[in-house]
Amino acid sequence: PLIAVLPGDGIGPEVTTQARRVLEALDLGLSFEEAPVGGAAYLQSGRPLPPETVALAKRADAVLFGAIGDPRFEALERRLRPEAALLGIRRELGLFANIRPAKLFPGLEDASPLKAEVVAGLDLVIVRELTGDVYFGEKGRRTNQEGLRQGYDWMGYDEGEVERIARIGFETARKRRRKLCSVDKANVLETSQLWRDVVNELSTEYPDVHLTHMYVDNAAMQLVRRPAEFDVIVTGNLFGDILSDQASMCAGSIGMLPSASLSGGSGANGMYEPIHGSAPDIAGQGKANPCAAILSAAMLLRHSLENEASAQRIEAAVAQALVGGARTPDLGGTHTTQQMGDAVVQALR
Amino acid sequence: PLIAVLPGDGIGPEVTTQARRVLEALDLGLSFEEAPVGGAAYLQSGRPLPPETVALAKRADAVLFGAIGDPRFEALERRLRPEAALLGIRRELGLFANIRPAKLFPGLEDASPLKAEVVAGLDLVIVRELTGDVYFGEKGRRTNQEGLRQGYDWMGYDEGEVERIARIGFETARKRRRKLCSVDKANVLETSQLWRDVVNELSTEYPDVHLTHMYVDNAAMQLVRRPAEFDVIVTGNLFGDILSDQASMCAGSIGMLPSASLSGGSGANGMYEPIHGSAPDIAGQGKANPCAAILSAAMLLRHSLENEASAQRIEAAVAQALVGGARTPDLGGTHTTQQMGDAVVQALR
Ligand SMILES: CC(C)[C@H](C(=O)O)[C@@H](O)C(=O)O
Ligand SMILES: CC(C)[C@H](C(=O)O)[C@@H](O)C(=O)O
Repeated sequence: PLIAVLPGDGIGPEVTTQARRVLEALDLGLSFEEAPVGGAAYLQSGRPLPPETVALAKRADAVLFGAIGDPRFEALERRLRPEAALLGIRRELGLFANIRPAKLFPGLEDASPLKAEVVAGLDLVIVRELTGDVYFGEKGRRTNQEGLRQGYDWMGYDEGEVERIARIGFETARKRRRKLCSVDKANVLETSQLWRDVVNELSTEYPDVHLTHMYVDNAAMQLVRRPAEFDVIVTGNLFGDILSDQASMCAGSIGMLPSASLSGGSGANGMYEPIHGSAPDIAGQGKANPCAAILSAAMLLRHSLENEASAQRIEAAVAQALVGGARTPDLGGTHTTQQMGDAVVQALR
Repeated sequence: PLIAVLPGDGIGPEVTTQARRVLEALDLGLSFEEAPVGGAAYLQSGRPLPPETVALAKRADAVLFGAIGDPRFEALERRLRPEAALLGIRRELGLFANIRPAKLFPGLEDASPLKAEVVAGLDLVIVRELTGDVYFGEKGRRTNQEGLRQGYDWMGYDEGEVERIARIGFETARKRRRKLCSVDKANVLETSQLWRDVVNELSTEYPDVHLTHMYVDNAAMQLVRRPAEFDVIVTGNLFGDILSDQASMCAGSIGMLPSASLSGGSGANGMYEPIHGSAPDIAGQGKANPCAAILSAAMLLRHSLENEASAQRIEAAVAQALVGGARTPDLGGTHTTQQMGDAVVQALR
């Protein structure tokens, strides 16, 4: 199988290198091909998402993605910014389902700002819709009737978009503790009301899954108050973006959280990336935690290559490295990115 | 001065009663007039926001608001639901500036799910825009080109709306630690890009305030990671809704957080309400924490009646009651709503 490697910006290359090392150490006969994306691609070719990069991603069996984002390009027009590459590739590959597990690895209770008893047993999955919502609606700037500059973005979902992501939420819950919490803002938004209606309709197909609905403001609060009570959360693109970053703190550090972006139940052509960003402030210094990228590689094996055993081997190796005391600075330790990768590779053996 | 009291639904009446008691105990010659709002008003008159209630609110020098929300009315059309009353009164009174302070009272370190050292010194204010954004844009349901049901909401801000709320953010910061963090999602939303541009333009008038920008996903994370580093946060209606509920957990309980909704710098005709909702599950049981309502009454004195001394007396009384061990169940204690009110009234003397 062919893995497209898109390292991207900032700490993206450093962490992706370690993830690739771990995959190589498993000797699965994978081949790798790299391509530029984000600010790195813009520097080389004037485009954050070159057509060759998209072509490679489509041709590959799975995509290993680093991170994008570079403050130098923030003032460019939107379609030239690094973020345009990430949004573009999600759309081009039809990656509508973003799976973001947040799990507390043993020994990391102290790394979380939350009390140990609050995060004990934390094991949740956020299923985030990734190709709709206010992210992809019409947006722009205009002068309004009063002659004032106005910025606007259209938010919306249709029932097809909601149903397919809700289904993944229900299916995910079914394989776990059978609790699904759908998060919206139906008391204010029509987009959310449609969301809630469709989720309710679909729930008749999943009588074995306990479905609840929560407003997003309450969910943000409950994720601090009692995060361990959540099993699976399903939500839209914008709310999922916010809640998953927030949930990362329950797991100790955003440097621990992987994600999978899938185009369908099968997972073919999935993309795998840490949920953290490019962290330009620490780029190139060997300070980044590669675990999120390494655990993303595990998700790649699980979802795109259907190799559950190898996925679990990687996850166990990360756990073992942590139990052995390996800690990057975000976890309160002094391991470099490379040393953290070493510890995981060693534990694999 | 005339105070309009709108107790609303669920625990609204219980907590408002205690807030009113505290105001009365100060002997400031206030007069009070009550009117129904939310589900309570709908039951009486078929309208969640009767015109007489709006008229009273406009006539009064300030509004003391309880809470709205009642699951029995969730299936009604949107304009008849309790929430329509809250959104309607905000719009009718032009309450564009929502001030939500989050402060950790001494002794409540243990009530927070966050580690004591993480919340130590917490003292932040969220300045939330309250009459624009996706809350008040055109919204609806339609059938799209593929024949599918679709829900949509228009999100937008114009420069006038952003400037007036940003100004309140800067002014608030100026009276405090002079740090303003503007939260948006400018890497994806045009509404946010306009927001960021206008905040930057205005910042030249406030060279003494240290301005930073943060994406909302990162802000949700930092509010768990290092909440005490924030001074003033200024943000839009939707992000402010989410972040302020989340921040409440840093302060121990959402039952501790008051808010002021103002129509201008002066604060005339302001509305004051706990940030918590109607909590139908505990309504009428004497379990609700009245502190958020009582502290809202303090904000009323500060902003609408310009009586800073009395505002501080109430805040000190709440602090003293807590130090004395008074705790409702949300804070891990067994005080009833009334007993908590008693403790504050006693401390006032
Ligand atoms: C970089 C940004 C466009 C992106 C998003 O908002 O989706 C990121 O925050 C993420 O969560 O993957
Ligand atoms: C009840 C709801 C409409 C309201 C809001 O979203 O503004 C509430 O959550 C709040 O924060 O005051």
